Amino acid sequence: MQLSKRLVAELFGTFWLVLGGCGSAVLAANFAGPLHGLGIGFVGVSLAFGLTVLTMAFAIGHISGCHLNPAVSVGLTVAGRFPVRDLLPYIVAQVIGAVLGAFVLSLIASGKPGFDLVASGFATNGYGEQSPGHYSLAAAFICEVVMTGFFLFVILGATDRRAPAGFAPIAIGLCLTLIHLISIPVTNTSVNPARSTGPALFVGGTALDQLWLFWAAPIIGAVIAGVLYPLIAEHHGSNARNLALD
Amino acid sequence: MQLSKRLVAELFGTFWLVLGGCGSAVLAANFAGPLHGLGIGFVGVSLAFGLTVLTMAFAIGHISGCHLNPAVSVGLTVAGRFPVRDLLPYIVAQVIGAVLGAFVLSLIASGKPGFDLVASGFATNGYGEQSPGHYSLAAAFICEVVMTGFFLFVILGATDRRAPAGFAPIAIGLCLTLIHLISIPVTNTSVNPARSTGPALFVGGTALDQLWLFWAAPIIGAVIAGVLYPLIAEHHGSNARNLALD
Amino acid sequence: MQLSKRLVAELFGTFWLVLGGCGSAVLAANFAGPLHGLGIGFVGVSLAFGLTVLTMAFAIGHISGCHLNPAVSVGLTVAGRFPVRDLLPYIVAQVIGAVLGAFVLSLIASGKPGFDLVASGFATNGYGEQSPGHYSLAAAFICEVVMTGFFLFVILGATDRRAPAGFAPIAIGLCLTLIHLISIPVTNTSVNPARSTGPALFVGGTALDQLWLFWAAPIIGAVIAGVLYPLIAEHHGSNARNLALD
Amino acid sequence: MQLSKRLVAELFGTFWLVLGGCGSAVLAANFAGPLHGLGIGFVGVSLAFGLTVLTMAFAIGHISGCHLNPAVSVGLTVAGRFPVRDLLPYIVAQVIGAVLGAFVLSLIASGKPGFDLVASGFATNGYGEQSPGHYSLAAAFICEVVMTGFFLFVILGATDRRAPAGFAPIAIGLCLTLIHLISIPVTNTSVNPARSTGPALFVGGTALDQLWLFWAAPIIGAVIAGVLYPLIAEHHGSNARNLALD
Repeated sequence: MQLSKRLVAELFGTFWLVLGGCGSAVLAANFAGPLHGLGIGFVGVSLAFGLTVLTMAFAIGHISGCHLNPAVSVGLTVAGRFPVRDLLPYIVAQVIGAVLGAFVLSLIASGKPGFDLVASGFATNGYGEQSPGHYSLAAAFICEVVMTGFFLFVILGATDRRAPAGFAPIAIGLCLTLIHLISIPVTNTSVNPARSTGPALFVGGTALDQLWLFWAAPIIGAVIAGVLYPLIAEHHGSNARNLALD
Repeated sequence: MQLSKRLVAELFGTFWLVLGGCGSAVLAANFAGPLHGLGIGFVGVSLAFGLTVLTMAFAIGHISGCHLNPAVSVGLTVAGRFPVRDLLPYIVAQVIGAVLGAFVLSLIASGKPGFDLVASGFATNGYGEQSPGHYSLAAAFICEVVMTGFFLFVILGATDRRAPAGFAPIAIGLCLTLIHLISIPVTNTSVNPARSTGPALFVGGTALDQLWLFWAAPIIGAVIAGVLYPLIAEHHGSNARNLALD
Repeated sequence: MQLSKRLVAELFGTFWLVLGGCGSAVLAANFAGPLHGLGIGFVGVSLAFGLTVLTMAFAIGHISGCHLNPAVSVGLTVAGRFPVRDLLPYIVAQVIGAVLGAFVLSLIASGKPGFDLVASGFATNGYGEQSPGHYSLAAAFICEVVMTGFFLFVILGATDRRAPAGFAPIAIGLCLTLIHLISIPVTNTSVNPARSTGPALFVGGTALDQLWLFWAAPIIGAVIAGVLYPLIAEHHGSNARNLALD
Repeated sequence: MQLSKRLVAELFGTFWLVLGGCGSAVLAANFAGPLHGLGIGFVGVSLAFGLTVLTMAFAIGHISGCHLNPAVSVGLTVAGRFPVRDLLPYIVAQVIGAVLGAFVLSLIASGKPGFDLVASGFATNGYGEQSPGHYSLAAAFICEVVMTGFFLFVILGATDRRAPAGFAPIAIGLCLTLIHLISIPVTNTSVNPARSTGPALFVGGTALDQLWLFWAAPIIGAVIAGVLYPLIAEHHGSNARNLALD
């Protein structure tokens, strides 16, 4: 498959991840209309993030591999599953998709009378005062490293040739749901630098100041997993079931 | 398979989508009996809509392809996956099924003392004052176009011959769950003109006046996806895994 | 496989359905300890019922076909998928399993200080004053007929030879979840005479008086589906993918 | 596969089970920040525990079989599916993983101002005053025996050669979700001695005093299932689909 088409697929997929995941958080988590109490809460947001990946992995896994996440692309590269030459283009496409997703979300969210994008938080990630539970920078950093590390570990394992074929989108999507069930209170959950960048650009201020952590920690976690999984699994390049067919 | 049997399958399936999806919303979302607080909320309704499609796709995917949605039939036609000559019959069967589903739901719901169908909203879709969160017409329109577009994109991708076989009902059903997790506050979520038409006929008034949007926006979104997916995926008719075997 | 072993499997499976489904309702739905508000509500109970069937269908589908429900056995018989001679033994095993499941649940539930089995409702089904939302007998009857009818329709479709192999437990289990998401407020959801009988025997009184409906309505629904599915699907016995290998 | 690599996989997997399952409970179940009411409750914790197993079973099932639980290893040994000589090493690796998982969780949780590990309960299991619903020792014991018994029954059935291939991680993971939906109010749900040991070591006191039950009851349940399943299923060693390829 041509790189240009794979990049469009990554852009679309990351757009969907941000619109769907952050969208469920902004629009539906704490629904305060006349039906207050029906909102989807953290459980619904966790499901939504996971399902953006599950659905896109079935839809474009055969086109681009469906990374939708710079940390995933980095981890797969470290593990020898993704060519270094495609890494930067993939990351650029992912970030553009995330920003466009956040833009369309801002259009929809602004259609509600009285909506204030900055005051809403707009699903940005953060630590300290910007953490939903006011978790410290250290706790946020550890959390993002560990969560992203296990995310990559599951991705590498579930796409191993020895794992049952066809199920990887379920394993990977529901892993992202699980990660959100655990860590929304800590950092609002990133494990994905593109997902963090999209909303932060619209909110600005502290959200942008803290963005570095949501690039650094996920990528560190991904690199660790990319080194460890092959060691544990006696994995060779030949074991990788490459979702992209090019 | 004969067209008549496929149409009966579409009718049954869309009946189930409306009875199950709208039924969960009307009967169980905001349960206000002695056990107030146990209601299923937007998370439960989102799950219910998705599971109507997931279950029917396994049950009748091999009979009719399980569209259950005029926008889906249109999008598949545009993408070259469905014959134009069957489009109108499918849409008629879907609308009849949706109306009958809403009728049976009205019978059950009326069995509760004090139930007022119009005051309940009866799970109709709407914008402005009829939107759960009072979202504007423009926000509602954008939301329905984008959500239906991605719904079709996932349907086209997950039924591509290169996607893992057998999993399409899971991908498509859970995509509808995801779409509801995001957009119930905006329009009560349609992405399906038949689903919108069924309850609107019973509620009348503003619900009927606003029905045009829930035909126009989903179909526009579906057409866009039907054009884009083949461009991105280098998809040819020969790549389509046709769920219907006729 | 010998009939005796299949009957033990049905007994175990229906035990699990009642202990798990009714157990989640009795023990966890409306949790009122120091952590009030954490209870699983109708969403959790719906998931639990569905997962009892999903898990057992993977565990004993290859032994007994995993009916766990007299209405399912009747519907499969009508559709020509199950031998008449095994029908009565299956139903007896299912009812014994359900009663034993309710018994073990009563042992566990009684371990909570102040637990009153009758006052709790013990997850019995009912209509009128015994319906969670006080739905009428007519609404309850229609609801149970229609829900069981679609349940059997999905079972017959998902186990059709033309449906994707291996996925039937997911389709069937999540269909039961869906049915609960819709109909718990109406009848507390039966669609399964054995599941209704177990708890009713322990509660007695009105629960027993109303038990007839939860045998009659589900079986009527199952018979209708058992007649209709083959007509729509051009189904022949040779299309049935029989989960039991004997 | 070398034993050492399988042990590392078990350690990693059990780490993930405790960090993810207990972590969702400690960090997110009863979220009490400015967004009170968004917490994931028992439904979210149930999903999280199940998804730790589902994700790891896809990721390391082909390496170690993904037991993550001394009771599972014992039950598989009794059923003739796991070599006795590997039992003790597996259990040691699982306990070490659980303790390390609890340690990392304590690091993250302590990043919240005012967090008191002992007062939080730290997701320990317990009976009597330590049970979320103050269930008696007898009820707790019965509950853990029965729940673990059915857990093993489902594991043995879903990994039987006659069950559909590839689906076992879904069946087993969602079975753990189901078990939590039922039994969190009774014991906070163990069915896994390693999972109970990790947090108890950090809380000490009564949690440690009661730890014996969460070794004894799960292992008794597992042994019963390990004896019964082969009797019912006419199972021979040759029917076992061994997830580990060594």
